[in-house]
Amino acid sequence: MSELPTELDPARYVVGRRAVAEALAARTPLEKIFLSYGGEDGPMAELRIAAKRAGITCSVMDRRKFGALEAALGLGRNDAQGVIALRPLRTALTLERLVEDALASNPAPLLVALDGITDPHNLGAIARSAECVGAAGLILPVKFTAPITPAAVKASAGALELLPVARVQRMSETLAQLRASGWRIIGTAIPADASYDAAHTYDGPVIIVIGSEGEGLHPRVQAECDVVVTIPMLGRVASLNASVAAGVVLFEAQRQRRSTTH
Amino acid sequence: MSELPTELDPARYVVGRRAVAEALAARTPLEKIFLSYGGEDGPMAELRIAAKRAGITCSVMDRRKFGALEAALGLGRNDAQGVIALRPLRTALTLERLVEDALASNPAPLLVALDGITDPHNLGAIARSAECVGAAGLILPVKFTAPITPAAVKASAGALELLPVARVQRMSETLAQLRASGWRIIGTAIPADASYDAAHTYDGPVIIVIGSEGEGLHPRVQAECDVVVTIPMLGRVASLNASVAAGVVLFEAQRQRRSTTH
Repeated sequence: MSELPTELDPARYVVGRRAVAEALAARTPLEKIFLSYGGEDGPMAELRIAAKRAGITCSVMDRRKFGALEAALGLGRNDAQGVIALRPLRTALTLERLVEDALASNPAPLLVALDGITDPHNLGAIARSAECVGAAGLILPVKFTAPITPAAVKASAGALELLPVARVQRMSETLAQLRASGWRIIGTAIPADASYDAAHTYDGPVIIVIGSEGEGLHPRVQAECDVVVTIPMLGRVASLNASVAAGVVLFEAQRQRRSTTH
Repeated sequence: MSELPTELDPARYVVGRRAVAEALAARTPLEKIFLSYGGEDGPMAELRIAAKRAGITCSVMDRRKFGALEAALGLGRNDAQGVIALRPLRTALTLERLVEDALASNPAPLLVALDGITDPHNLGAIARSAECVGAAGLILPVKFTAPITPAAVKASAGALELLPVARVQRMSETLAQLRASGWRIIGTAIPADASYDAAHTYDGPVIIVIGSEGEGLHPRVQAECDVVVTIPMLGRVASLNASVAAGVVLFEAQRQRRSTTH
């Protein structure tokens, strides 16, 4: 899976050491920072420390790939001084705004939260399914999550440009707050309390939390779930592909919610 | 998506011009033939014609990749004379045997047929979901389908090594025969007759036919379906990823079948 952006929107990029350092100092949200291999001098090291503090992933590209990114953005060789940052999509919102908008459009909305999904293609495919079931938005952690790269947007078939996305610092705290204000939190993991298709699992304003394929849900996230559901496996293979599992749960939620009165 | 095999089982490979030509002459089943770029002489051209007649995909690799395949198989440079063929997995069966085994283990089995799935990763992910819902096997067309490459096996999380697979010359004829002998054929496509979650859709011995993401089902295949179902899309994105859509339909079938008496 290539990290190289596949469809470029120049407005999403911040170019050059000074511009990126200023963006970091101003706490401007950034999805990801691309660095050219070999630029390991003092200013670059400072920039990496600042990025790490802000929870922003740095990806070191070989010089040829970095050069291709510069060219794709219409820049000359070394115009970017080895640093290009990717801004969030315009669908990025604060959590408060996301929740407010969701409740304004539907008294019992459905939100999707991701915990530990680190592959941009899985992120894209899950966002696509979320958009297709009519979810009101996506909640992603700031750290340890796949950045919304152009590859993720492409895998989402454009869903990431339609679906509001909020980034949160601590998923478990966010879920605890939302739960306290009446949202039902449904985790997907093994071991689980119930089958994903138990009746009335998805009634009311719900947040479905999708865990990573390998690790499942973080224990602190799992602790905030009203119920943890799983998909029965009838064969010998132990688990589904993460985006297929998310699709199965999201469409079961849609199926149940279509057949009740919302 | 690389065509280069990721996990090699040397027993699956036929090496060298003569061995592959003999395999073709003897109508030995082959998944795919890998050719080194540049070997376009007479014997190679004959081999390509014979492969085309047999409906076996030839994939031309650049010399470096072909050399890597030779090395991975423990061969010296040019030992393969530019030709290596991939045999089917041991799970390959005749259709008759697949159907017989399915009915022997379950009076109302579920089979999955693919029509026009050409991406090995989608093939693998769909096979994984099929195995996880307890399907009795997979029916694939001989032509115009993704070959079961090591990449497909990997994407299937091993499901393609567990699930019996039958290849058929003409999917529409196969479905017509099976339908006449009492199987219910359920196609997935747009436009459809019904929602995928209509009650009793998946009763009895059923074959679920998954079409390609772009094209849907072939008209002749669609004509053999007892019912064509679709998944309601509530957002603005028009369709799901092919393997997610297949997973949603297969798990709805499993859900309905678990709640009835089979």
